[in-house]
Amino acid sequence: MAQNDQLAALNRAWLDGRKVTAFNLMSSPGSGKTTLLVRTLQDLGSDFPLAVIEGDQETLLDATRIGATGVPVVQVNTGAGCHLDATMVAGALRNLDPGSGSVLFIENVGNLVCPALFDLGESARVVMISVTEGADKPLKYPLMFADADLLIVNKIDLLPYVDFDVERCISDARTITPGLEVLTVSATTGEGMGAWYDWIRAHSGHGAREVAAS
Amino acid sequence: MAQNDQLAALNRAWLDGRKVTAFNLMSSPGSGKTTLLVRTLQDLGSDFPLAVIEGDQETLLDATRIGATGVPVVQVNTGAGCHLDATMVAGALRNLDPGSGSVLFIENVGNLVCPALFDLGESARVVMISVTEGADKPLKYPLMFADADLLIVNKIDLLPYVDFDVERCISDARTITPGLEVLTVSATTGEGMGAWYDWIRAHSGHGAREVAAS
Repeated sequence: MAQNDQLAALNRAWLDGRKVTAFNLMSSPGSGKTTLLVRTLQDLGSDFPLAVIEGDQETLLDATRIGATGVPVVQVNTGAGCHLDATMVAGALRNLDPGSGSVLFIENVGNLVCPALFDLGESARVVMISVTEGADKPLKYPLMFADADLLIVNKIDLLPYVDFDVERCISDARTITPGLEVLTVSATTGEGMGAWYDWIRAHSGHGAREVAAS
Repeated sequence: MAQNDQLAALNRAWLDGRKVTAFNLMSSPGSGKTTLLVRTLQDLGSDFPLAVIEGDQETLLDATRIGATGVPVVQVNTGAGCHLDATMVAGALRNLDPGSGSVLFIENVGNLVCPALFDLGESARVVMISVTEGADKPLKYPLMFADADLLIVNKIDLLPYVDFDVERCISDARTITPGLEVLTVSATTGEGMGAWYDWIRAHSGHGAREVAAS
């Protein structure tokens, strides 16, 4: 773990040297990380350079979905591994070779536990949960929420069909991380995505220009 | 890992000695394990003795939900740990002290990766995914499906509102585990639960008497 932290510091320096902002995107399997990314890349891809590192145990499925947007992507398969680590990301960064000023999204392995423990050298941590997972997740998996910079509550288009208390989820998350920023979105319908794009701009030195949500 | 396997073998012998059948229930966070269990305990609790071990990183939330059914339950909190292991289960078994002929459900930590690697001494492995998670999960997280004895596809009441190909999910899972048994259910509405109860009876020596699905 100490070795991972040292390598993460080197990744962070490498990224700083290139003026690349990296967001580590973490959630359970199936919360909608890839769907959110595909829409984000389509909507922001003409504004500034983007790049993606995809983490999965197996398959190139997600890299194929991301690659279809035209944004550079490198897939990392972890095999039995349950999370990305700084070594994997260091290798992927060299392959990806992101341009100066890029915004890099690192989609971690779908897992609400282990990825929380491994610094990758990212600029910020974005944790996502979907409303179909149940509002009790922040209390049951507190480590993931403890170091988060942003919580995205996804799939709000499904709220009419599930029993999910958005306010309780947010207030529980803020008992773990006071002041945690929270956005509610539907990556499928586009609702709330404008605020996510504003957040990306504000945290990547690309200004906070208003972006029309689709 | 070798030590875990040895301890799991001891758990299995202990359970065999008591004629207790143990099912290791695994899924992503929020797939509906606890909801499925609560309904199962309510519907089967008068037919034969039941018991539950609940695994979570933190909180007694799930044990409280289970305990409300009147079924004996022990909560194991794993802290930073991402899965139950045979040592944790050995301790929980002594606390739980399940009666002869019991059916024991072990609800693992919500995680589609790490729990797959740790034998707990269970009689069978039940993997659940929900239709809100996306049908690509078996290919992306193959280890979890490789040793499964049963796949439960949950939340089928939400199929009209999500893009989930049930047939593709099942056929992908069977490329990993040929002949894998699959049940489709809604733990919320009760649809398909009768087949799950039949499966439990058939795999626990409690006969395969028909149970009316609610």
